[in-house]
Amino acid sequence: MVHINDHYLKLKAGYLFPEIARRVDAFAAAHPQADVIRLGIGDVVKGIPRPMVDAMKEAVEEMAHDDTLQGYPPDQGQDFLRAAIVEHDFDARGVQVHSDEIFVSDGSKCDSGAVQEIFADDCVVALTDPVYPVYCDSNVMAGRTGPADEHGSYAGLVYMPCTAANDFIPDLPAGHVDLIYLCSPNNPTGAVMTRDALARWIEYARREQAVILFDAAYESYITDPALPRSIYEVEGAREVAIEFRSFSKNAGFTGLRCGYIVVPKELKGRAASGEEVDLHRLWARRHSTKFNGVAYPVQRAAAAAYSPAGQQGIAERVAFYMENAAIMRQQLGAAGLTVYGGEHAPYLWVATPDGQDSWTYFDYLLDKAHIVGTPGAGFGAAGEGYLRLSAFNHRDRIEEAMERISQL
Amino acid sequence: MVHINDHYLKLKAGYLFPEIARRVDAFAAAHPQADVIRLGIGDVVKGIPRPMVDAMKEAVEEMAHDDTLQGYPPDQGQDFLRAAIVEHDFDARGVQVHSDEIFVSDGSKCDSGAVQEIFADDCVVALTDPVYPVYCDSNVMAGRTGPADEHGSYAGLVYMPCTAANDFIPDLPAGHVDLIYLCSPNNPTGAVMTRDALARWIEYARREQAVILFDAAYESYITDPALPRSIYEVEGAREVAIEFRSFSKNAGFTGLRCGYIVVPKELKGRAASGEEVDLHRLWARRHSTKFNGVAYPVQRAAAAAYSPAGQQGIAERVAFYMENAAIMRQQLGAAGLTVYGGEHAPYLWVATPDGQDSWTYFDYLLDKAHIVGTPGAGFGAAGEGYLRLSAFNHRDRIEEAMERISQL
Repeated sequence: MVHINDHYLKLKAGYLFPEIARRVDAFAAAHPQADVIRLGIGDVVKGIPRPMVDAMKEAVEEMAHDDTLQGYPPDQGQDFLRAAIVEHDFDARGVQVHSDEIFVSDGSKCDSGAVQEIFADDCVVALTDPVYPVYCDSNVMAGRTGPADEHGSYAGLVYMPCTAANDFIPDLPAGHVDLIYLCSPNNPTGAVMTRDALARWIEYARREQAVILFDAAYESYITDPALPRSIYEVEGAREVAIEFRSFSKNAGFTGLRCGYIVVPKELKGRAASGEEVDLHRLWARRHSTKFNGVAYPVQRAAAAAYSPAGQQGIAERVAFYMENAAIMRQQLGAAGLTVYGGEHAPYLWVATPDGQDSWTYFDYLLDKAHIVGTPGAGFGAAGEGYLRLSAFNHRDRIEEAMERISQL
Repeated sequence: MVHINDHYLKLKAGYLFPEIARRVDAFAAAHPQADVIRLGIGDVVKGIPRPMVDAMKEAVEEMAHDDTLQGYPPDQGQDFLRAAIVEHDFDARGVQVHSDEIFVSDGSKCDSGAVQEIFADDCVVALTDPVYPVYCDSNVMAGRTGPADEHGSYAGLVYMPCTAANDFIPDLPAGHVDLIYLCSPNNPTGAVMTRDALARWIEYARREQAVILFDAAYESYITDPALPRSIYEVEGAREVAIEFRSFSKNAGFTGLRCGYIVVPKELKGRAASGEEVDLHRLWARRHSTKFNGVAYPVQRAAAAAYSPAGQQGIAERVAFYMENAAIMRQQLGAAGLTVYGGEHAPYLWVATPDGQDSWTYFDYLLDKAHIVGTPGAGFGAAGEGYLRLSAFNHRDRIEEAMERISQL
């Protein structure tokens, strides 16, 4: 019988969010009258701004006509979209990124899951703990780990705990690592890395000739203009960092699927022969062989996100979600809970009361208040004792949820 | 310095189509007046039928409003789309496929590149020669091969030559293999597998406990109703076959990106421990961890492809491209060329005249007739001596191209 990829059997349970969905579905089936408020998965609730919707409809109409049909999308993405990205996300902030260093994709989940493929199996991988599960699971599937222990920590990975003691900013590893996944603003803790913190990591990566895989999917939630939104705003990053960006949380494209990855030309890896190889060349080969581009109408919608009206639509939505976060911070604090995050990120990282474990508190909130969070333990061992609450919901739902928690 | 995935360095040149694009761009730059006719890449030219376009625009408008916004797509695809797939692609042909065995994706290229991830590194992979390069390259990248020889054949892969001598239908391997990629109607040869041919392969796979990876992306071009359109129309396939389907070539979605993969529940693999494992479970984990679904408006458009008006639009386009193919077969034959395919597939497989090698003939046609084909050698060693011509073009362009070839 055909042999399977045995590494899959190391994976703990299901992927986190399907597991939560299963528990919520079971609860809803048992309590059909319950009004469940979902603050679990980080999914937007506000409609996509009109400029993006109109651009997309116009592009869809073009697809109906022989003379304006767009077939297979260009490999790395439409020129018009990559030009807009360069101008607004990088040039405008004084950052050097070239159009041909950008690869448009169907989202940061796919990119951050796939990026490990261009590296050797024996790379030492460093992850923050807690961590977005895709970074971890994709490396487990690729065989870069041993089995998991009872906390869900895999042998062979270097975990960097992010706790209240270090303000949820990871300390540098004591030894050498090859690949470092960083996410700022952070999912799940909501912590944001300062310029100094990023500079320390870039210095470490340069010294150790490591590569930083920097997930900036939540950059638009940074409210302090002095904080960097791209790792390339910090000197030396082009030689050591790949960056992931997304249209999901700013433009509300969770249901449209668009993001991009930046692979600077300076980035190098080493072959077994000793030869230096451009990582850009490897990623270009991966992207053109195993991916076939993003729908033209979606790319048109993404480009419209950079128009003045598109930017205004994004700013309004970001402000709305961050007002939610502020209300949540205030109310949860008033209810006696210890809360982190929610200032430069749409996530609140709530310490579970009375030392409850996080799945117990998840079940408790679901059962008693009909509120869905995300158990911190689902993000890693150091997430134990926390619950992530998302600010992505309608105002009345946020207020209702806070009211219910206050009454508990 | 970080170690790269050395297997990438085994890959021959670029992925085939970018390589062709580079040559055509160079020619066009040197001959700006030349009227180049592209019969290379198999990309549609007729606009997407109105029912799909209208459904998509309606769905895009829903995305603008809080109360109808669709966020993250459901893991395996929208229920309404999977129900339509089951009803029209399988139930209507008396085939048993369940909705939860269908995984909606962004296209067959992505699926056929990713499917190998759930299998062990030591699986023996069998490929037809010539072959769609993604099946091959994705296994090279994963390390299931040694280096390539001067013909581009990789050590460790089992090649099954498809030649005029066997009517381009692969013979069964002499020994054991674990994974078998089959594509029917075939890209690039245009050959189609009969029920008997598929039954032989299913029998082989059952005997050898192998898995067939069956690419049916071109099934709508089958003109003989007696020929199977799905491998599951042939008895015993559910225990041994995964099938890929696409909306690209029937509904014209090359620029929208939608397809699906069928993983029957009966399919098993074996873990190193000896345990039997459902391949469905493994693929579900891969799909939910490394992919994040297809845009809701694209899924609405795909569902509309199954409406009576959508089906009519598809039938008209398929008929149009197959009329092109018939014209090409007739004219190329009249010009003294030996031509295969083009009867149940939109591809013609043309023997190069006078024993020219296929890249030479490619350059010759580009230079003398300003026509772009695809060199057979790009699909494998047994493709040497052939050129693939695509019937995907406007009628006047097809006629002009045939006229130019006749005059050569």
